[in-house]
Amino acid sequence: MKTIQAVSYPVHFQEESYAALTNLIAKNDYSTIFVLVDENTFEACYPRFLEKLNTSRDLKLIEIASGEINKNLNTCIKVWNAITDLGGDRKSLLITLGGGVITDLGGFVASCFKRGIDFVNIPTTLLSMVDASVGGKTGIDLGVLKNQIGLFANPQMVIVDDVYLNTLDEREIQSGTAEIIKYGLTYDYSLFEQIKKDKYNNINKLIFRSVEIKNEVVLEDPREKYLRKILNFGHTLGHAIESFYLESEDKKSLTHGEAIAIGMICESYMSSILLNLSIEKVAEIKETILSIYNKIEIQKEDFSAILDYLKHDKKNVNGQINFVLLNDFEDYKIDCIVPEELIIQSLEYYNS
Amino acid sequence: MKTIQAVSYPVHFQEESYAALTNLIAKNDYSTIFVLVDENTFEACYPRFLEKLNTSRDLKLIEIASGEINKNLNTCIKVWNAITDLGGDRKSLLITLGGGVITDLGGFVASCFKRGIDFVNIPTTLLSMVDASVGGKTGIDLGVLKNQIGLFANPQMVIVDDVYLNTLDEREIQSGTAEIIKYGLTYDYSLFEQIKKDKYNNINKLIFRSVEIKNEVVLEDPREKYLRKILNFGHTLGHAIESFYLESEDKKSLTHGEAIAIGMICESYMSSILLNLSIEKVAEIKETILSIYNKIEIQKEDFSAILDYLKHDKKNVNGQINFVLLNDFEDYKIDCIVPEELIIQSLEYYNS
Repeated sequence: MKTIQAVSYPVHFQEESYAALTNLIAKNDYSTIFVLVDENTFEACYPRFLEKLNTSRDLKLIEIASGEINKNLNTCIKVWNAITDLGGDRKSLLITLGGGVITDLGGFVASCFKRGIDFVNIPTTLLSMVDASVGGKTGIDLGVLKNQIGLFANPQMVIVDDVYLNTLDEREIQSGTAEIIKYGLTYDYSLFEQIKKDKYNNINKLIFRSVEIKNEVVLEDPREKYLRKILNFGHTLGHAIESFYLESEDKKSLTHGEAIAIGMICESYMSSILLNLSIEKVAEIKETILSIYNKIEIQKEDFSAILDYLKHDKKNVNGQINFVLLNDFEDYKIDCIVPEELIIQSLEYYNS
Repeated sequence: MKTIQAVSYPVHFQEESYAALTNLIAKNDYSTIFVLVDENTFEACYPRFLEKLNTSRDLKLIEIASGEINKNLNTCIKVWNAITDLGGDRKSLLITLGGGVITDLGGFVASCFKRGIDFVNIPTTLLSMVDASVGGKTGIDLGVLKNQIGLFANPQMVIVDDVYLNTLDEREIQSGTAEIIKYGLTYDYSLFEQIKKDKYNNINKLIFRSVEIKNEVVLEDPREKYLRKILNFGHTLGHAIESFYLESEDKKSLTHGEAIAIGMICESYMSSILLNLSIEKVAEIKETILSIYNKIEIQKEDFSAILDYLKHDKKNVNGQINFVLLNDFEDYKIDCIVPEELIIQSLEYYNS
């Protein structure tokens, strides 16, 4: 499979990518090499990684606890202390091996350690492969606020090896599929059609095209001034829903994809009211998404709490909530202001 | 006084600089403007700042406790939460008004909030004026390790207004003088001569020339690959001494300048043994520095603890401690490896 060239680094695919990492290590004479894992990727992914990476160098493992709940500054402090205690310096390399928590937090940790050391991302979930491989976003949560702290920083290289997907359960594969649907709706309808027809079979092709799309978008607009905002489709309301379910003690948490799936249905509905997206297309979107995701009944009494989360969205400016909506498939409009009543209506449409 | 153009932003001097800040604010349409102070600069500097800044905009004050001991992630979390609670978003501006703790921490906080908001630095101590005005270094301490966490990020503008120096006591003025001496020894001997003759009288001229030098150095070598390393002269051992005194409960802390002053005498001595700096010039350096700083008798039994701090210096690679030493005035050599015995000898030379 081809390599995709991101702004300042390559994204390598499948088995041959490890040779590129071996070369990077040999060429750069790193003083120490750290591998950041969680308890799951240590068990399920690290053995394959070790087997494929051909180096005589000593690798120093740093393990953190899995889960979004640990994507915070306390975990960063633990990792920074571990790097320090294990002799890390400015010429160290950090390899992240895991899902979005590991790659987002690891990139942030590396970029701030002694004002920046090199890092390599090896996403092991479908979500992190299609979402976090390119774009240079690193970040952690501040209390309940997702990715409130972070910065733009590019890895030296990304490795996408779909063998790691075998370690995931169905629900995690579904979670990543939401981002692929997003690329389909906003940028390449044929990708959406493929999902409609085949769900997430032929996953390799879906991943490659998703990374390609994300890369085109990010190269065109690295700092999220216009085009890159399409990547937020479904995410404005989706993030608020995700945070609400994460923080509510009596509710089961949703995966990122489950929340974004709801967000995309609702934001499609908003699009049909405020813009030109036909209600038939909204129905097509809803039907396709609900063929993959179970419907979550959102309680009426929870609507106002979800709206409160929306008000803290990173993308808000001057207290106004900004949505990116669709005029049509592959045709978007950024910075749409949506009245609260319509947001509530859209949740009712989802429930209906 | 002229403006100095740093890599991507101007350094303005004295009263006229506030007009530039007023313009920046008017031009950028910031959604919210925060001013970061500590209890000292709130009382001593903020009234002047308010008087000079000509804006009808509402300024939101965020106050942190003064002192290096607070230059840590806990303080960052407090500031990030305050910014969030006060409605900060991606179009907010953070103005830092204070010494190195405020400007270093504030720059870090701004650069990581929602992946980066604009900031303006207004250093109010001599040290932060001559050292932190240019160079783009932001950072905080991790436990006892100074500036272990941070990144390179440039403010929109820096304002150097020496009226704020009237709020400082003599010991703080002395502290900043060490950096001016450093510029003199490594880059412009006439600056050192002026200190030798007049100490820190004519402070305006000393500040302007120091910022000019630092800017020339940083523009030539932004990422500290070669020339910029001269800025570490006196700092390798100096930082270790500073950390040791800060952490020792039974010892009075040293100011940064007091520690760097000792570091410069010791590293000059090392230079005379390993390179060509004559012992007469070392004596001249020692005499000049001790005409400004009281001698601190460093106890023999503390030498090994100081060496331990040295081993954690950010600039170490592969466990080797790297010094920048002098062949002569204005003539340096980077990446010098110094044996431990010579480090100890240099401390004895300082004590003698």
